[in-house]
Amino acid sequence: VADATARDLGERDLVAAVCRRLTTGPGVLLGPGDDAAVVAAPDGRVVATTDVLVEGVHFRRDWSSGYDVGRKAAAANLADVAAMGGRGTALLVGLAAPPDLSVSWALALADGLRDEARLVGASVVGGDIVASTEIVVSVTALGDLAGRPPVSRSGAAAGDLVVVAGRLGWSAAGLALLLAGADAGPCVDGHRRPRPPYDLGPLLARLGATAMCDVSDGLLVDLGQIAEASGVGAELELSALPIDGPVQAAADLLGLSARDWVLGGGEDHALLATVPAGTRLPESVVVVGRIVAGPGVRVDGLAELPDAGWEHYR
Amino acid sequence: VADATARDLGERDLVAAVCRRLTTGPGVLLGPGDDAAVVAAPDGRVVATTDVLVEGVHFRRDWSSGYDVGRKAAAANLADVAAMGGRGTALLVGLAAPPDLSVSWALALADGLRDEARLVGASVVGGDIVASTEIVVSVTALGDLAGRPPVSRSGAAAGDLVVVAGRLGWSAAGLALLLAGADAGPCVDGHRRPRPPYDLGPLLARLGATAMCDVSDGLLVDLGQIAEASGVGAELELSALPIDGPVQAAADLLGLSARDWVLGGGEDHALLATVPAGTRLPESVVVVGRIVAGPGVRVDGLAELPDAGWEHYR
Repeated sequence: VADATARDLGERDLVAAVCRRLTTGPGVLLGPGDDAAVVAAPDGRVVATTDVLVEGVHFRRDWSSGYDVGRKAAAANLADVAAMGGRGTALLVGLAAPPDLSVSWALALADGLRDEARLVGASVVGGDIVASTEIVVSVTALGDLAGRPPVSRSGAAAGDLVVVAGRLGWSAAGLALLLAGADAGPCVDGHRRPRPPYDLGPLLARLGATAMCDVSDGLLVDLGQIAEASGVGAELELSALPIDGPVQAAADLLGLSARDWVLGGGEDHALLATVPAGTRLPESVVVVGRIVAGPGVRVDGLAELPDAGWEHYR
Repeated sequence: VADATARDLGERDLVAAVCRRLTTGPGVLLGPGDDAAVVAAPDGRVVATTDVLVEGVHFRRDWSSGYDVGRKAAAANLADVAAMGGRGTALLVGLAAPPDLSVSWALALADGLRDEARLVGASVVGGDIVASTEIVVSVTALGDLAGRPPVSRSGAAAGDLVVVAGRLGWSAAGLALLLAGADAGPCVDGHRRPRPPYDLGPLLARLGATAMCDVSDGLLVDLGQIAEASGVGAELELSALPIDGPVQAAADLLGLSARDWVLGGGEDHALLATVPAGTRLPESVVVVGRIVAGPGVRVDGLAELPDAGWEHYR
């Protein structure tokens, strides 16, 4: 059925074919196929978040495979769970897609969701497939805090260090390369399949992170949101920002600024956190600035416009 | 801002305006506005289900208000939770909508989701709003089983009674009336805002229901799915089917068959369950047939095609 379309198969057979690709781990008490799934919530609480991807806005089918879109949609949600200090346990997927969608694309999407979920031990437990004119993938992730309080955006205090874990600027560089006609390379791969540092969310929570979020709108914007929610300001030090080799190489190739991608690019789903000064950090966590009393975000002492990141309808 | 559009407001202000409409109950440990919400799962498990509504497929903006769509989207999901024997605790909402969507429509949608959730004590705890060309509303409901096992579709046994709670045929009759040019009346209201009998899901579970689902694709189709999942057959008795006054009146008015709507209409989200013979049932639960050993669904002894209900891509 590799070349069949959703219309050829019909909703029920398509759902059945998708379900056959899925596997469920031990935390899934009742998997896909009933009115609802049942998932373990060991500490009596569940973390829950929803992110939506739309074709033409968040992905292009000529640039990303169904598998890539599945990986990316799962990553965006599982990174949100990690940013609370949690670990993803389950995904639910609402897929709206046109009747001429190829079945193989839908199955690859399911494979991508499954494989990204598996990185944290989570499973795809449910969803819905409906007819539409464009592809919309709405993913909900559930997660477990293992008894810890959630790390919100609002707990940063003056004197805290601003730290980053994971990639910055890769997805933005990859997008620029795709727009310029490239179709391979580490940043392009990074755009197609972000690699959030899932394990570092719970680790930063255990280390006493006072605030945390994932970088989905750009470092400056997301740090601005932590600062605003916490009633503080933040100072970033340009020389401390990690500019990875592939990002610098892409900037050199295109004659663009790697720093702009690192400060303004979203979708890598790095983790951005604040921790008390003196916190002993693992090597993969980089100190990029500090929290100050005054409002706003400054880079090397200069005020930055807080709304440089991506915003829908703008 | 009643006449403003999503484009006028921008994503962040629109999300903020939606969040101001929401209220959160005691089971919400961390509400909207962070990377993820945190919801109580008192018995260490969480029920989870996702349903997607698409404009032009599941609703028309000239027939249903934003408030109606919110009520309906919440109801479809909360009924799935009830059909497991659970009670809804939280909703998450992925909204994809065009830039020219009026802000007042989006706020009415949020109000409808909030008010339907409130019927069971649930809260809207999170979501995402993104730009698209058509309106897609993807809702995930979470729920609580209060320590009981979930009631799946697969536990029906020969000799069990087939019972129904809630409305049958109202939404189908309402749709027929709308197509015929009507725009008011009890069935039209029922199409716009289904009224699932939420409390009867947990009650039927406590009474020992062996299988349960909500009627979302039509009584015959959904009973066929219980029978198939359970490896049994079912016999419906036509004279036992509840044909409510407004449904019969709509059929008389249009010269159509009320029985067809009752047997084939979905979207009222009635509860369909099987219970052991001899179970003492509340008055609002109607016995409509029984489970038999053989496969398939028969009505008054005649075999029925199992795929008469709604299926996407067909």
